[in-house]
Amino acid sequence: MDCVEEFGSAEEIRDWFTECVVVSEYAEAKPLFLLAVFALAKLMNANEDHSQLSAIARRGSGSACRSLYGGFVKWIMGKDEKGTDSLAVQLADEKHWDELVIVIAVVSSQQKETSSTTGMRDTVETSLLLQHRAKEVVPKRILKMEEAIKNHDFASFAQLACTDSNQFHAVCLDTCPPIFYMNDTSHRIISLVEKWNRAAGTPQVAYTFDAGPNAVLIARNRETAALLVQKLLFCFPPKSDADLNSFVLGDKSILKDAGVDSLEAIESLPAPPEIKDPSQRHRGDVSYFICTRPGRGPVVLSDESQFLLNPETGLPK
Amino acid sequence: MDCVEEFGSAEEIRDWFTECVVVSEYAEAKPLFLLAVFALAKLMNANEDHSQLSAIARRGSGSACRSLYGGFVKWIMGKDEKGTDSLAVQLADEKHWDELVIVIAVVSSQQKETSSTTGMRDTVETSLLLQHRAKEVVPKRILKMEEAIKNHDFASFAQLACTDSNQFHAVCLDTCPPIFYMNDTSHRIISLVEKWNRAAGTPQVAYTFDAGPNAVLIARNRETAALLVQKLLFCFPPKSDADLNSFVLGDKSILKDAGVDSLEAIESLPAPPEIKDPSQRHRGDVSYFICTRPGRGPVVLSDESQFLLNPETGLPK
Repeated sequence: MDCVEEFGSAEEIRDWFTECVVVSEYAEAKPLFLLAVFALAKLMNANEDHSQLSAIARRGSGSACRSLYGGFVKWIMGKDEKGTDSLAVQLADEKHWDELVIVIAVVSSQQKETSSTTGMRDTVETSLLLQHRAKEVVPKRILKMEEAIKNHDFASFAQLACTDSNQFHAVCLDTCPPIFYMNDTSHRIISLVEKWNRAAGTPQVAYTFDAGPNAVLIARNRETAALLVQKLLFCFPPKSDADLNSFVLGDKSILKDAGVDSLEAIESLPAPPEIKDPSQRHRGDVSYFICTRPGRGPVVLSDESQFLLNPETGLPK
Repeated sequence: MDCVEEFGSAEEIRDWFTECVVVSEYAEAKPLFLLAVFALAKLMNANEDHSQLSAIARRGSGSACRSLYGGFVKWIMGKDEKGTDSLAVQLADEKHWDELVIVIAVVSSQQKETSSTTGMRDTVETSLLLQHRAKEVVPKRILKMEEAIKNHDFASFAQLACTDSNQFHAVCLDTCPPIFYMNDTSHRIISLVEKWNRAAGTPQVAYTFDAGPNAVLIARNRETAALLVQKLLFCFPPKSDADLNSFVLGDKSILKDAGVDSLEAIESLPAPPEIKDPSQRHRGDVSYFICTRPGRGPVVLSDESQFLLNPETGLPK
């Protein structure tokens, strides 16, 4: 905590930290901004409410400002050119829709060719479709999405999430030079989900991709999540030298529901009927899966046994 | 020629043929429509001019109506709902800009998952960006493109061709369900060209992709085409069992300019400075290349030695 002691006041700490946040463009560090904003605010006993803290975090990145809350969060654009009134508000907490299960397919852990910050700047400057999207499409979609979340309306939720993800990537492609965040594996995951949803007659799973190739898949309930995991493991089995424990992370109890307790079980999974050519399995194309749920925001832990860092040294336990 | 003899009049032949053209949705057969329209018109000594014939071919497919001419062709949408006034006109013949060299990278000869006809119908029905593109973007772009072609202005030509190709694929992605015609190899080719064009300060090569993953690359002149072929062969070398003669088709004299006379010469090509990781070569990702030029339209051959079919049997020679 040397750096804190060097400053004279909470304002100075805040100014220094905001500076750090703004100058850094290292995309992978962005979630840390939020944690640092939150930790410093707690450390300083700051009186700012969550939305004000989120506006500070926003100066670091959009994902940082959103992550100050758990559950369902809306990021308000704001009107100020410098973005000082761009902040996040919570629509509903994580308990509001607790049936949902999230499966993240980590397609690649390689560094991205285009960071989300420089990518979005290029899109704003060059895409002729972005203005139309921002003005005519997104505002109406956000209202519909708020309504879908409020009513636990999964069909609308999925339709809005998927079409908006695709449209975001469409304006990335309409950028000069074009930005490709999704790759062939992302496309295959979308195709699998789209075909399944159509065959089922009503959406079972929603997908969304941010500035990278990794799929965030939201299943309507735990039963659907188990089916999803089966289909995903069939299409994207691990490399032969992998171990199941590091191929599926997070809430591994879904594996049990999916009837998968070993690597051998993955090999004998049934082919999803949606798949055109079941002999073609894309082994190793997904690095690993994470099974999780809509989470809570950052909290101050009092139980020392839950700390991930050693409180004496500050190093990982 | 049995089928011709069965009909009583030219009108009947035309009606029958138009019917065949309209009912078939087999994308790969589309270029044949044009040849059949042209051949039947000649056979019947039809008086229709090229634009009227193109409107007939249009009923089969867009690419068929365009292909009735050589050089630079504009496809006019028309106003009639049934598309009867949708036809193609020639802007300039193939001699107008004879510096241009075309290199086609055939990424995959697999059948497409989405045909261009059903794909475009889905896009018209579901994309919220298409209307904006069709109304606000394309009409202005077409005028600029006509001007660029007229003035041999390669910088504008390339910029317009590339951004329009990307925007076409953006609205495909904005379709429900989304359409992915380009794949990772298409993206890598675009990235190579974009980086080269930026490094050179002015466009050297234009790219355009239609409803599939294959790249059509247009080099500003023969010298640039030789450089392009070098870069492409470095990044996408053939599989080890290939032979150069079936890996580069068409005008093979460009290979000589590129200093490539054997498979071994491909292995010792210098890495393009645009490439991030020169150790990563995507062997076998391009099935073959075709080197060509803006061509002429279909013609009636009088020299029998040029026939590809045996005039007695109708079978390939």
